[in-house]
Amino acid sequence: MQEKRVSGFSKKSKQDKIDWLQVNCYPQEPQASADLKKFWHPDAELQKVIDAFSENTVSNFILPFGVAPNFLINDRLFTVPMVIEESSVVAAAGSAAKFWLTRGGFSAQVKSTIKLGQVHFSWFGPADLLKKKLAEITVFLRNEAAYLSANMEKRGGGILDIELLDFNREEPGYFQLKVSFETCDSMGANFINSVLEQFGESLQQFIAQDAELSAYPVDIIMAILSNFTPDCIVRASVQCPVEQLAGACTHLDGSAFAEKFYQAIRIAQIDPYRATTHNKGIFNGIDAVVLATGNDFRAIEACGHTFASASGQYKSLSSCRIEDGIFHFWMDLPLAVGTVGGLTKLHPLAKRSLDLLGQPDAETLMGIIAVTGLAQNFAAVRSLITTGIQKGHMKMHLQNILHHLTATDKEAKQAIDFFHDQVISFNAVQEFLNRLRTQIA
Amino acid sequence: MQEKRVSGFSKKSKQDKIDWLQVNCYPQEPQASADLKKFWHPDAELQKVIDAFSENTVSNFILPFGVAPNFLINDRLFTVPMVIEESSVVAAAGSAAKFWLTRGGFSAQVKSTIKLGQVHFSWFGPADLLKKKLAEITVFLRNEAAYLSANMEKRGGGILDIELLDFNREEPGYFQLKVSFETCDSMGANFINSVLEQFGESLQQFIAQDAELSAYPVDIIMAILSNFTPDCIVRASVQCPVEQLAGACTHLDGSAFAEKFYQAIRIAQIDPYRATTHNKGIFNGIDAVVLATGNDFRAIEACGHTFASASGQYKSLSSCRIEDGIFHFWMDLPLAVGTVGGLTKLHPLAKRSLDLLGQPDAETLMGIIAVTGLAQNFAAVRSLITTGIQKGHMKMHLQNILHHLTATDKEAKQAIDFFHDQVISFNAVQEFLNRLRTQIA
Repeated sequence: MQEKRVSGFSKKSKQDKIDWLQVNCYPQEPQASADLKKFWHPDAELQKVIDAFSENTVSNFILPFGVAPNFLINDRLFTVPMVIEESSVVAAAGSAAKFWLTRGGFSAQVKSTIKLGQVHFSWFGPADLLKKKLAEITVFLRNEAAYLSANMEKRGGGILDIELLDFNREEPGYFQLKVSFETCDSMGANFINSVLEQFGESLQQFIAQDAELSAYPVDIIMAILSNFTPDCIVRASVQCPVEQLAGACTHLDGSAFAEKFYQAIRIAQIDPYRATTHNKGIFNGIDAVVLATGNDFRAIEACGHTFASASGQYKSLSSCRIEDGIFHFWMDLPLAVGTVGGLTKLHPLAKRSLDLLGQPDAETLMGIIAVTGLAQNFAAVRSLITTGIQKGHMKMHLQNILHHLTATDKEAKQAIDFFHDQVISFNAVQEFLNRLRTQIA
Repeated sequence: MQEKRVSGFSKKSKQDKIDWLQVNCYPQEPQASADLKKFWHPDAELQKVIDAFSENTVSNFILPFGVAPNFLINDRLFTVPMVIEESSVVAAAGSAAKFWLTRGGFSAQVKSTIKLGQVHFSWFGPADLLKKKLAEITVFLRNEAAYLSANMEKRGGGILDIELLDFNREEPGYFQLKVSFETCDSMGANFINSVLEQFGESLQQFIAQDAELSAYPVDIIMAILSNFTPDCIVRASVQCPVEQLAGACTHLDGSAFAEKFYQAIRIAQIDPYRATTHNKGIFNGIDAVVLATGNDFRAIEACGHTFASASGQYKSLSSCRIEDGIFHFWMDLPLAVGTVGGLTKLHPLAKRSLDLLGQPDAETLMGIIAVTGLAQNFAAVRSLITTGIQKGHMKMHLQNILHHLTATDKEAKQAIDFFHDQVISFNAVQEFLNRLRTQIA
């Protein structure tokens, strides 16, 4: 809640912003502003770096930074950095990594690395005329944007292709330039958007100067990258003889486990309600590494889920096959990530995450991220088809609540015994501890 | 990279984990372990709480915690907490909030709050026989899970409906119990999963004890909530007379702005490549509030994107209409969030976020989150169809780099002048500063 309108808020100093919040939004909670400041980093220079990532910053939100060791990927061993606030995710990744470590490890194979962008525009002339001029337009645009692409070209990337799409049937007058890019080790958003905005301006100029095209009204609607990059794809996979799955759980042999696992993946292919949760689990792993390495998880999520719906029905991202006694489990995933640019160098822990991974190039990082997603999925499905997930989850949740309520070791032990066959909730645990503490007092 | 395999890593103390990382993963970087420790919170008790959220934690990953004031939603004023590492997002939200503040503000309307879960099972008998027994099964299951649902029922929620779905056509023998829930102010994952796992066990028991059903083999495959909740929906909307949009930008009148805005939304309905990025922008706003309030952004993303693909083609989540001189802009979004349970009380800043919002119930929070997403979308589309997004972005990015390279105010000013018409990259700025510093030295 906010008591009254404010103007010029963004111009206030950080301290003034906090003071304003205290008075106007936290009138009943005198500790609020102190709590916000409690999370400031003691190193003022470093804090300034973090503050500059966003706007109106008044505090830091901290998320646990954990690691999952023993990931064998293409015969190299990695400890994977993961940033996630949900319990069991890092443990599951570590457990899947260990399981596959003795079964040949994971494979990761980058299939393509093409990024995309679009210039959307209206032009109310005959499509054929525009198509006829495309080659000429292309030369002009490339030339006009050369100052922007020169550096990327030196690094081996640049503008690949410029395609003209005619959407007149869907929306009168609407055309699109669909542009493909190679952005090497950067995610490339700034490069792509700069080029596309230049393309928009130059296209308008070309049409205005062209005797035939200028006869019809033109309007550049917008120019921006597409986060849907189905040709920036990595495949993560594992495989092993079915009998080697015997160790996956205590009560199923390798073949029974493989069959049940296959069934679970099949269900996520059939039913969108299951697929959503199935893929959500995959993104638990993916986003944790994306965040840790300073990449943008909203972009990765949007792309991956659109990809999952590309067939016309939303489906599992991962697939499973049992063939000639071999269990295959894999996932193709579009992943536009960078190991240079963006926050990768600017966020001090993103930098340390990349160091932890041996300063990978973008393709290696694509592999590591996809493998972590696949490992997560393997562990989640394994739990689901064997013990269920709640036992482990509730154990962790109880621990969280006990920590929060500063239970002593002895109290914690008693609580764990008591809640063995009880429903765990914050209030129930609080009541239990209160009873315990009153009895003693 | 990791030099050799490790076992028992999770059992090591936090300090031992860091020591191990230093030796095995950071052999070339003696500062790495100190850097990880630099982000520990000085309050050891509080740090213990954060560590317990996840596993193998060695540090904290900090994200800027910012606020966007002046959100008028259903005639109440809110300052919205946002956690995001991407520049321009908080500024855009604040700017859209301010724009609509003088145009009637935002509306938020919760349409339904039904959560879902599934028990997936194989049963190789005639579907009709199972259907005939459903009423009896339902009574048995509800009874067996009563100990789990009693508390939720006291709060006004509980198990709503149990439906039997026959998927035999897609996969022989595959059935599903699709269960709907009301979870009041909690997101409800633990409650739902506990009930569903109990349902799985009880279903197996029922079938085993039933003379007719037990004649056919049964296997409970898995039992878990669905993150796809198309009946847990909120609508966020704004509207105003077209002429009041005159203030949206400098060079278009209200009507021209409305038309161009409509076109941009229409394109995101037509083209999945555009829709992905369009919705990604919406989730920039949504996830920032979801994170700040201790909710699970992977769940929200998976649900929202599946919803966006429900028609068979991935589409814009937001819609626009111009009718009788009125501009309408709105979004229906499925949002399963909680204001109690999970991390909402456990994370100290999540608690402060909810305080900032006046301790909203789950429905109010659904509205605030959806409105922030819509505001974000409004601001992004407004930028795209008028000035473009790169100018602002690159200005922010330059600031970030200058902070990182600890530029003095004077150096920063010179850099801003120089990069006015230059391509901004980390290396280019570093080179510029080096040149500057060498000249002076």
